[in-house]
Amino acid sequence: MSKTVITISREFGSGGRTIAFELAERLGYNFYDKALVERIAKESGYSKDFVERRGEDATSTSSFLFNLSRSGSGGYDGVSGISDKLYVISHNIIKKLPEEGPCVIVGRCADYILKDCPEALHVFIYADMQFKAERIVKLYGEMEDVPQKRLEEKDKKRKVYYKNYTGRIWGMSTNYDISLNSGKLGIESCIDIIADLAQR
Amino acid sequence: MSKTVITISREFGSGGRTIAFELAERLGYNFYDKALVERIAKESGYSKDFVERRGEDATSTSSFLFNLSRSGSGGYDGVSGISDKLYVISHNIIKKLPEEGPCVIVGRCADYILKDCPEALHVFIYADMQFKAERIVKLYGEMEDVPQKRLEEKDKKRKVYYKNYTGRIWGMSTNYDISLNSGKLGIESCIDIIADLAQR
Repeated sequence: MSKTVITISREFGSGGRTIAFELAERLGYNFYDKALVERIAKESGYSKDFVERRGEDATSTSSFLFNLSRSGSGGYDGVSGISDKLYVISHNIIKKLPEEGPCVIVGRCADYILKDCPEALHVFIYADMQFKAERIVKLYGEMEDVPQKRLEEKDKKRKVYYKNYTGRIWGMSTNYDISLNSGKLGIESCIDIIADLAQR
Repeated sequence: MSKTVITISREFGSGGRTIAFELAERLGYNFYDKALVERIAKESGYSKDFVERRGEDATSTSSFLFNLSRSGSGGYDGVSGISDKLYVISHNIIKKLPEEGPCVIVGRCADYILKDCPEALHVFIYADMQFKAERIVKLYGEMEDVPQKRLEEKDKKRKVYYKNYTGRIWGMSTNYDISLNSGKLGIESCIDIIADLAQR
């Protein structure tokens, strides 16, 4: 059965977003990265910039899953904090994306939210530090912090965000159907492998 | 550059050993599973049965890496326990296997031992519980314990063994170059993907 929903989780700087974009282009699937931010912004009433800043690297201080179990509700009641509110909105949007047609979704715990979707292929992209550091300097330029520090901080936040909203360990193989080291295998190879699996 | 050394780490029941065997056949590589046990048995003086029993699911009670750092030696001095002795022998054999020609190595922390080998491709194979349970019943028959319990116990031991000897988390994507869910993707697909990557 072909896979019409592809979720791409990725380490910062690994090229995961590029892989996701190229895949969507090649397969003719909808691409949800900025488009998802726009949807969340529209639904929440916050600006796109704000939603982006409070994205996958901002978390509330208390556990979302704990709050949710205490509130006994999947909605807003009893769920505190802006990040939690944005997560719930994003969760509800992502849950329905497959109904709108074949798609590639970047980040935002989509692997977890769509874990029971039979049409989904869940992918994790990562790479070694040197590959990522060279890549972000090339893409975003030099900054005050050394690239290693930027990479570690960004991924640490994503890890905490993921743990907070899913209860799972970010980057653990068993969360995904396939995990690929883009630094070792090459970005083109990753696209080929995923496209091929999606079309089988 | 083609990959002439493939290490396969795998969850019990995931078909990882079958994938490794078929890969070695298809690529014409040496296959190290039982053959590795025989080597370790020969070098240690213990029987094959004993080495197999004290394999990847038997660990000493104290941390190997801690003992090693305290002893300040990569050899046997200061390293206690039969499991540790077998690990050191196995480590030294695996380290030299690539010199003997292209190969596929199953388990025994080969991904960690050969992590700096430029010709190596490190693979992790896993699957969902239902797939693994059905597979082990088909392969090994019904036993006193339910298959789920056998699977959990076996993998728990492998996890502890791996942590003890490598300091890393077993199954974490970043330890490997590619991780594949054989239950979801199918065993044949896994073989195709790995063989293709090895030959690129």
